[in-house]
Amino acid sequence: MKKILMLVMTLASAAGLSAQDAVPAGVETLASPDGGLSLKFTVTENGEPCYWLDYRDKPVVLPSTLGFEFRGTQPGPKFAFGETLAILPYGEPDDFHSGFVAENVVRSSFDETWSPVWGEESEIRNHYNEMAVTLRQHSTDRLMIVRFRLYNDGLGFRYEFPEQDNLTYFVIKEELTRFAMAGDHTAWWIPGDYDTQEYDYTESRLSEIRGLMPSAITGNSSQTPFSMTGVQTALQMRTDDGLYINIHEAALVDYSCMHLDLDDRDLVFTSCLTPDAQGWKGYMQAPCRTPWRTVMAVDDARKALASRLILNLNEPCAYEDVSWIKPVKYMGVWWEMITGKSTWSYTDMQSVKLGSTDYSGSVPNGRHGANNGNVRRYIDFAAEHGFDQLLIEGWNIGWEDWSGKSKDYVFDFVTPYPDFDIKALNEYAHAKGIRLMMHHETSSSVRNYERHIDAAYGLMDKYGYNAVKSGYVGDIIPRGEHHYGQWMNNHYLYAVKKAAEHHIMVNAHEAVRPTGLCRTYPNLIGNESARGTEYQAFGGTRPHHVTILPFTRLQGGPMDFTPGIFMMDIENFNPQNHSHVNSTLANQLALYVTMYSPLQMAADAPEHYQAHMDAFRFIKDVAVDWSESRYLLAEPGDYIVIARKAKVPAGQDKTSPEAGDGACRRPQWFVGGVTDENARTVEFSFDFLEPGRKYEATVYADAEDAHYLTNAEAYVISTEKVTSKSRMKIYMAPGGGFAVSIREIM
Amino acid sequence: MKKILMLVMTLASAAGLSAQDAVPAGVETLASPDGGLSLKFTVTENGEPCYWLDYRDKPVVLPSTLGFEFRGTQPGPKFAFGETLAILPYGEPDDFHSGFVAENVVRSSFDETWSPVWGEESEIRNHYNEMAVTLRQHSTDRLMIVRFRLYNDGLGFRYEFPEQDNLTYFVIKEELTRFAMAGDHTAWWIPGDYDTQEYDYTESRLSEIRGLMPSAITGNSSQTPFSMTGVQTALQMRTDDGLYINIHEAALVDYSCMHLDLDDRDLVFTSCLTPDAQGWKGYMQAPCRTPWRTVMAVDDARKALASRLILNLNEPCAYEDVSWIKPVKYMGVWWEMITGKSTWSYTDMQSVKLGSTDYSGSVPNGRHGANNGNVRRYIDFAAEHGFDQLLIEGWNIGWEDWSGKSKDYVFDFVTPYPDFDIKALNEYAHAKGIRLMMHHETSSSVRNYERHIDAAYGLMDKYGYNAVKSGYVGDIIPRGEHHYGQWMNNHYLYAVKKAAEHHIMVNAHEAVRPTGLCRTYPNLIGNESARGTEYQAFGGTRPHHVTILPFTRLQGGPMDFTPGIFMMDIENFNPQNHSHVNSTLANQLALYVTMYSPLQMAADAPEHYQAHMDAFRFIKDVAVDWSESRYLLAEPGDYIVIARKAKVPAGQDKTSPEAGDGACRRPQWFVGGVTDENARTVEFSFDFLEPGRKYEATVYADAEDAHYLTNAEAYVISTEKVTSKSRMKIYMAPGGGFAVSIREIM
Repeated sequence: MKKILMLVMTLASAAGLSAQDAVPAGVETLASPDGGLSLKFTVTENGEPCYWLDYRDKPVVLPSTLGFEFRGTQPGPKFAFGETLAILPYGEPDDFHSGFVAENVVRSSFDETWSPVWGEESEIRNHYNEMAVTLRQHSTDRLMIVRFRLYNDGLGFRYEFPEQDNLTYFVIKEELTRFAMAGDHTAWWIPGDYDTQEYDYTESRLSEIRGLMPSAITGNSSQTPFSMTGVQTALQMRTDDGLYINIHEAALVDYSCMHLDLDDRDLVFTSCLTPDAQGWKGYMQAPCRTPWRTVMAVDDARKALASRLILNLNEPCAYEDVSWIKPVKYMGVWWEMITGKSTWSYTDMQSVKLGSTDYSGSVPNGRHGANNGNVRRYIDFAAEHGFDQLLIEGWNIGWEDWSGKSKDYVFDFVTPYPDFDIKALNEYAHAKGIRLMMHHETSSSVRNYERHIDAAYGLMDKYGYNAVKSGYVGDIIPRGEHHYGQWMNNHYLYAVKKAAEHHIMVNAHEAVRPTGLCRTYPNLIGNESARGTEYQAFGGTRPHHVTILPFTRLQGGPMDFTPGIFMMDIENFNPQNHSHVNSTLANQLALYVTMYSPLQMAADAPEHYQAHMDAFRFIKDVAVDWSESRYLLAEPGDYIVIARKAKVPAGQDKTSPEAGDGACRRPQWFVGGVTDENARTVEFSFDFLEPGRKYEATVYADAEDAHYLTNAEAYVISTEKVTSKSRMKIYMAPGGGFAVSIREIM
Repeated sequence: MKKILMLVMTLASAAGLSAQDAVPAGVETLASPDGGLSLKFTVTENGEPCYWLDYRDKPVVLPSTLGFEFRGTQPGPKFAFGETLAILPYGEPDDFHSGFVAENVVRSSFDETWSPVWGEESEIRNHYNEMAVTLRQHSTDRLMIVRFRLYNDGLGFRYEFPEQDNLTYFVIKEELTRFAMAGDHTAWWIPGDYDTQEYDYTESRLSEIRGLMPSAITGNSSQTPFSMTGVQTALQMRTDDGLYINIHEAALVDYSCMHLDLDDRDLVFTSCLTPDAQGWKGYMQAPCRTPWRTVMAVDDARKALASRLILNLNEPCAYEDVSWIKPVKYMGVWWEMITGKSTWSYTDMQSVKLGSTDYSGSVPNGRHGANNGNVRRYIDFAAEHGFDQLLIEGWNIGWEDWSGKSKDYVFDFVTPYPDFDIKALNEYAHAKGIRLMMHHETSSSVRNYERHIDAAYGLMDKYGYNAVKSGYVGDIIPRGEHHYGQWMNNHYLYAVKKAAEHHIMVNAHEAVRPTGLCRTYPNLIGNESARGTEYQAFGGTRPHHVTILPFTRLQGGPMDFTPGIFMMDIENFNPQNHSHVNSTLANQLALYVTMYSPLQMAADAPEHYQAHMDAFRFIKDVAVDWSESRYLLAEPGDYIVIARKAKVPAGQDKTSPEAGDGACRRPQWFVGGVTDENARTVEFSFDFLEPGRKYEATVYADAEDAHYLTNAEAYVISTEKVTSKSRMKIYMAPGGGFAVSIREIM
């Protein structure tokens, strides 16, 4: 179909609209497959593209305009002495947000079911109605397509720039995508920042963000907050009438990451892209497109956790062969460095230069974690208890002055410290049936990493590594670039694609927050890109954190949260570190279920697990890949209870010693529950179990007197028989939780 | 020796000093080996390091202070909203130019003779007296050493930052090295610019620079002039009392390139380093040092051409095996694209994307220069006339939209256009005894080049290339970086060192001007880094240009000037191009002698040489490596006459058909002379020839009625017998010159 729209309405009158009103001329509508969501689109009398979204009779997004400002194409003064930093010499920005007419609207529908390589479920339905609007700016004779995809649980839309004579190469000064909120919603937010996502969440009304921002901005080794009302996506909100709205983006490729800047008078969010070193937001060549901008809207928090909106908006898997991609349960020589008990560095030299510093002739500091003896001790424990891999950080030279020095040639990624025998340790691990996991901290010296990446991956091939944890701590080199700009987003994907050529899986920390790219590139098995467990050793994290992340950070992909801390008072491990882990031990177990990831770490030290082998059993039993997930109870900032069914038959889960023993089958279902700082008793049904069968549930719960501050390691383990008809009532202590493993019995 | 200097003099009183005055207390002196140059150093009462230089009784540099401003080490406001571009958040800059005391002065002498892998002579004497002054800034307890090396023809000094507790990592805001001139000298200058050196020279008094700057700044695809009185080095000056002063730098490694900003009231130059994307001038880690700052001072212009100051201040050759490094005489499929007769691109598509654009299915534009037939034609001619190599540009995909688009993935450096059979053409060339020369235009997309450089050099290995011409046209990516900043200087050397691993020689165009690094890395056989012959096809270059370059650009290393144009009216080649080559044909021949390079091109098309095979004979005969050079006559901006003796016995010069024919030996000596826009008759002696032997000189001279504008291709060739007692008087037309080849006869 093709038609010319009549432009009869103004934004003002559009603002008055809602689903109940009759649809005036010039307004295009699109409904979700179940009819619950309704999108409307028009062009205002100023020629501004404008959309709004309703959920049944409730407004989700009020009429909001779309568009861009481009860098002026008319050059400014030819010689701008002293302006070498500036956005000059360029003229006025090009308006690409008004003066449009809609020339063409194409509608379609799509419905398919696909199977992820790994995930929360074995099959995902991708079902949406689509509307693509072709817009022409007559003053410039330039075209833009806005493509909307409406799902039952939310909206995705993106800008597309088709091949055309008058718009080929262009530079984005700012994207002007607006999201007008219908009320002063409750939001769970972290400060908008071009360089870090490692903030604790704040729960507040939108109108309270400005006042709370100063206290919300805590320190990081690289951070660039940009506005007193700037926040990050995925942003989870709740309306007073019970809608759960989530704004994020999907398929962030060759573009800069979007933040949200709030006009807290009108409660309108405007997109704010991450700038490059000169302040520009994106370099484009048509034909091209932006990532999807997403607005999830559901009437139950559990539906938000069940949503696959972000994954569905990404492209299918780009790899033919994915047989080499496997979920990983691992331990690491890591927590002892994070807590300060041992060091990444081999010496205490204040300054080193790779190539000239003589390590073999240097004085060891005696506290180097990645030494042969210690690594063997971890290998022994991890292998005995059936883990897949062991991460070792601080294995390579350069850690003496790696951070905060803006050091270009900071690591070579191939030279081990003298006390790390890379050949012997890999052989020792392989002989015991596990692999070592590689670590590439780049210190954000990205040119240096790319110069060495072929040799670094080659070293991994040589010694049998198939997974790498990479890190981007500190300010980016090239200097002036930001962690979430187009330049760096290009790099992160470059590293993932190159790794795929080597059949290497990537877990990138401090990289841009995921936007579902793991569907297309499933060797991206993890990211940190949020405040992880490490902060429990840096002063602690508020208990509600783990009840929020699944609604926000995890919407885009799995997080390497590194749970499993059993020793909550860090000073018992390192007397110099007085930080406390704000979580009960049962809560730590629950995270293996509530914080979905195909890459799960048992982050604590072997000696701490040895002190609680009964509880450690759950970590050994729990699966890392799932055929089915049930979101039993959820409220952001308060509590989450999830049940998941192991994809890999439990009998083949090699973390269980009695594997294959018919008399005692391995668990098939796992339930995890977490609460915030408030104690609460939750009740749920086992109706997810197969009717008519008998099961034994092993319950790892907080003790009655457990408390995340004063009695964090108090837990009780019990077993009971359950069927699909059973219900369970269970107490969660402040900062607590519970974990349940369920095995079928004869 | 160790002593504490008394600080009794002020800069003001120091300003009154010259060599005649008695040396007051607190002043350290250093004399050149022949006593002609005298350096004085003191610390002013403000604790500013201060030096001055005299040549016999004439001041070269009046008392001038030394030092730095560092980026403030005290952080500024923690969160600078919207300041993501700026030099914030950092506090006041650290003063590292005052408050010093001189703690220690160490003197030494050095005298060695070394042999370059290639050069203007087979042996170079490196003879200097040295003085190293250790300075301590008590307020910060930081140390700096200023090391002076005084040669008979000039001064070199550099800053050294030894390993110390209070200064390890630091950022340079500006280097404050001053050069106070003693008069309003005549200078041959080009505008100071962070991104281009391709300017025509202006001859003027220092005081006239400001007024002439606007007309001196001509357009370039990437340019960032920084000041109305900013000029580039090497800056050649002449004093009214006949001194020739030249300011430049040597051994530019891991530092940003220095420009000179003139205070034209006091006639004091201050160093201006090239900034990075954030405006900072250098990231340093002690122990480290700056490049050498050089001040050449001689009383005869010919001594300036004979000076090896810059080479001597560089480190010895870094390579064990240099047998693979050979001077190269080459032709190219190049001038026809430069003049616009043919194209680098295979199609006329406006926009391409590597990987998705289908070239095999695209429409050729029919004007692609690097096609199999045309390349074979060049190979036939170049091989027949004994050239070593043939450059082919435009052989690889991506040229359709390579320039001015800030395109990241612009070339892959390995995929030929459909009409360039890389395998067959290399085999064809090798069968005829010559090699093809590779071309890597990067379009200044440097991350992209580094990502592909291993594969690109690998392709060269595969097909037998051993030399690459690289290019850096347009603004740098990473965006905001400049061609001459620390970031790019690091890259240029990275590419040269990597090439050495492949035994590849590098000729980098648009790279930073050379500073003698070819001594240390002799596979850097050429640079453009100045306004080359190509500009004769872009509107022309003034005739005096070639009488200035040997005093300026060539001081740092050889230039791939690409001489040898025989057809001066470009429109006879490409009717659409009305540019004229401002040179006579004889002048073009002379350039092979006057513009020293181990890499010499015969830049014109075969058909133009075929029209003048008698003159072309000189290009075939002339050597490209020398055992001896004599600078017979020289005045910057006016004329240069140089005689050189072939290092390779002419009988082994395979460009001569009768090679080895005893009856007619090949030329051993070559003389070249060039003049500016003025005609002049020069006279010189042949006393450089071996006494008692007989020689035949073949003279290629301007015809009487020759003129670079109106009758450029009028030349006369004559021969005469000469001995060491002979003298020659020869006429040079406006924009003209002459060339002489001299062979011994029986």
